[in-house]
Amino acid sequence: MSATNGTNGQQHPVRSRSASSPYQSVQDYLSNVANFKIIESTLREGEQFANAFFDTETKVKMYGLNPDCAEKSAKALDSFGVDFIELTSPVASEQSFKDCRTICSLGLKAKILTHVRLNMEDAKAAVATGVDGVDLVIGTSSFLREFSHGKSMTYVQKTALEVIEYLKGEGVQVRFSSEDSFRSDLVDLLSLYKAVDTAGVQRVGIADTVGGATPRMVYDLVRTLRGVVQCDIETHFHDDTGCAVANAHAALEAGATHVDTSMLGERNGITPLGAFIARMVVTAPDYVKSKYNLKELKALETLVADAVQINIPFNNPVTGFCAFTHKAGIHAKAILNNPSTYEIINPEDFGLSRYVSISSRITGWNAVKSRVDQLGLKMSDEQVKEVTAKIKQLADIRPLAIDDTDSILRSFHAEQVEGCGSY
Amino acid sequence: MSATNGTNGQQHPVRSRSASSPYQSVQDYLSNVANFKIIESTLREGEQFANAFFDTETKVKMYGLNPDCAEKSAKALDSFGVDFIELTSPVASEQSFKDCRTICSLGLKAKILTHVRLNMEDAKAAVATGVDGVDLVIGTSSFLREFSHGKSMTYVQKTALEVIEYLKGEGVQVRFSSEDSFRSDLVDLLSLYKAVDTAGVQRVGIADTVGGATPRMVYDLVRTLRGVVQCDIETHFHDDTGCAVANAHAALEAGATHVDTSMLGERNGITPLGAFIARMVVTAPDYVKSKYNLKELKALETLVADAVQINIPFNNPVTGFCAFTHKAGIHAKAILNNPSTYEIINPEDFGLSRYVSISSRITGWNAVKSRVDQLGLKMSDEQVKEVTAKIKQLADIRPLAIDDTDSILRSFHAEQVEGCGSY
Repeated sequence: MSATNGTNGQQHPVRSRSASSPYQSVQDYLSNVANFKIIESTLREGEQFANAFFDTETKVKMYGLNPDCAEKSAKALDSFGVDFIELTSPVASEQSFKDCRTICSLGLKAKILTHVRLNMEDAKAAVATGVDGVDLVIGTSSFLREFSHGKSMTYVQKTALEVIEYLKGEGVQVRFSSEDSFRSDLVDLLSLYKAVDTAGVQRVGIADTVGGATPRMVYDLVRTLRGVVQCDIETHFHDDTGCAVANAHAALEAGATHVDTSMLGERNGITPLGAFIARMVVTAPDYVKSKYNLKELKALETLVADAVQINIPFNNPVTGFCAFTHKAGIHAKAILNNPSTYEIINPEDFGLSRYVSISSRITGWNAVKSRVDQLGLKMSDEQVKEVTAKIKQLADIRPLAIDDTDSILRSFHAEQVEGCGSY
Repeated sequence: MSATNGTNGQQHPVRSRSASSPYQSVQDYLSNVANFKIIESTLREGEQFANAFFDTETKVKMYGLNPDCAEKSAKALDSFGVDFIELTSPVASEQSFKDCRTICSLGLKAKILTHVRLNMEDAKAAVATGVDGVDLVIGTSSFLREFSHGKSMTYVQKTALEVIEYLKGEGVQVRFSSEDSFRSDLVDLLSLYKAVDTAGVQRVGIADTVGGATPRMVYDLVRTLRGVVQCDIETHFHDDTGCAVANAHAALEAGATHVDTSMLGERNGITPLGAFIARMVVTAPDYVKSKYNLKELKALETLVADAVQINIPFNNPVTGFCAFTHKAGIHAKAILNNPSTYEIINPEDFGLSRYVSISSRITGWNAVKSRVDQLGLKMSDEQVKEVTAKIKQLADIRPLAIDDTDSILRSFHAEQVEGCGSY
């Protein structure tokens, strides 16, 4: 287990990330941080993103990464490892219905779900598509009851039990979720969830529909719910206040079992798949690395971004274009000695590589020395320090690209080291 | 206080956001969520972003928003309201030193800080620039002690006390911060912080340098530190695992007083200014709205993005291009009835506006009706439902732009309502 004890006689034992990280799973009896399931909702929640228009081919491709062959697609999805794929309601439009049928027919290992309003008509349309499970949803906050559907909690519960009974009879999985759970009356919510749990749903869901919850609020609500229902607990967090990843993590700590993710979503989206994976590979490295094919993440995000014509955000965890770039002199030096000093995630796990930038005025000579070595130039430490000063001086005047810096190194080398200067 | 009681005789009292939100400050005795200060570090941490090159003019402009006049710039900064501006170390390069001097000479109300390594030479250079305060930093984790600076905790403490003594003599504020605090030995860290607190620093800082911490870990460490030192507590969270905003919030809940923010940063950055403001305007609306000029946020983010040639991320809280766009039919209907149903942040507070999208197959007839009314077309509900079906049908086939949808509405109106059709 430990790579840091001295029994192997090494003077400077190599610390493995997993042996030395304090960021791993909190082993509370409730915690599911190392045993969660992902409900990937880019094809439902993501359709609510303003730019989103996914045709069936894109939907199929997205989970296949190989448009030529449905069988290969199924394998690629299985190798990425999401547990569930949630699709737009079949009653949204004629094509939505067809999309559900097409994707259900691919024979994926991932379970296919669709997300419908709580009523019998929607439930029947869902069953007709051949999905594995139906995600029922209705607003339970006073806001949504007054301004959206206008129905009482008594009516909601009565309808829920009827629809659940029907769906059970059809042999499909059922999830029952409120919308806007954090602004719903707690007693109403728990009564309703207890009733649907007794009725035999596979999961109840809580949703921070407006994106206002904090990790502490999430922990408290999920912890309470965990004591009330026997079934699984699914969670759905909007990201309006930047807490959607941390909220998902807090929910798992409190005993939630399922997390909804999406690469896009209504307004600024829900827990992003990539950032959530970044969080969980740090919290539960063994579980995440053994279950998900991390090397497909970048291709998956790129496919979605291209489909809706957006850029992957510059500040995305893992896939942002500088996520593994190190620039400050003091960072670069340590990173070259041991990547774990400034990297909690290993880029190689995602098929990516780190880059130590030396083209700035905040670079240091250790980083420059590493580049000099990469270029196969021979310089003394004194010479490296001298050329570092030159780079800083030039970087004060204008931005330098990597090939600018390489040119400076080569010409300095030519002048000072090879003696080909003008003197 | 309450807009929801019935004493004013209204049948449907208007709920104000602040009267009905459960997302506001937790009133623990430790909590500083409604009394925090921002240390804005885009001009230091942000310089570590791989694309960043800020010339002095940009640095000055960034906090002025009016390049013509230093005095107006100072007032614009004051009106935005950041408490501190942190600058790159003056020893990084000759121009960095000059930048510090220039910005110090602007006479801003915000305090100017610079961030230097823990040694006397750097501290002296900092003092020479005329800054209000010096942020000292040194790595305290075994990783950084072994692979970065190679110094013992005894040496670190001795040097800290000497440098602090010098800076106090020069009459500048002092912050002492560890790097990689969460991987540092807790007893070492607390001993060191207790010593520098006794020596009279204004703030101690903890930093999640690798971005691996969770809100629960942050709460625990800050809570412990709060019991050990009398001085203020500053916090700095990298965003590698998507938790930087939630971590800052958790730190404030545990008694931290200052939060470092930046619009850019090393790797994928630290707690972003905009997302943090989004979080805090929900938690502590009165404090945030009275202190910060929220309407300047978008211009500020745009200025930085342009300076380093990046796009504002599509999923940014508040300023992402769809942050206040509503698309799903069930959302759009309720939003039209009462924006608070699906918005926890009021776009008007930021000088922005909401947009209800109707050009998709998941639109609903309530949203279409609202657009019909906006266009001044007269249609019955039945007619709106009929044209909604047409829009959904077309949106199944190809993406629709807003003017496509408007054309459909106008031509339907012309045919069906005005009777100018071919029959």
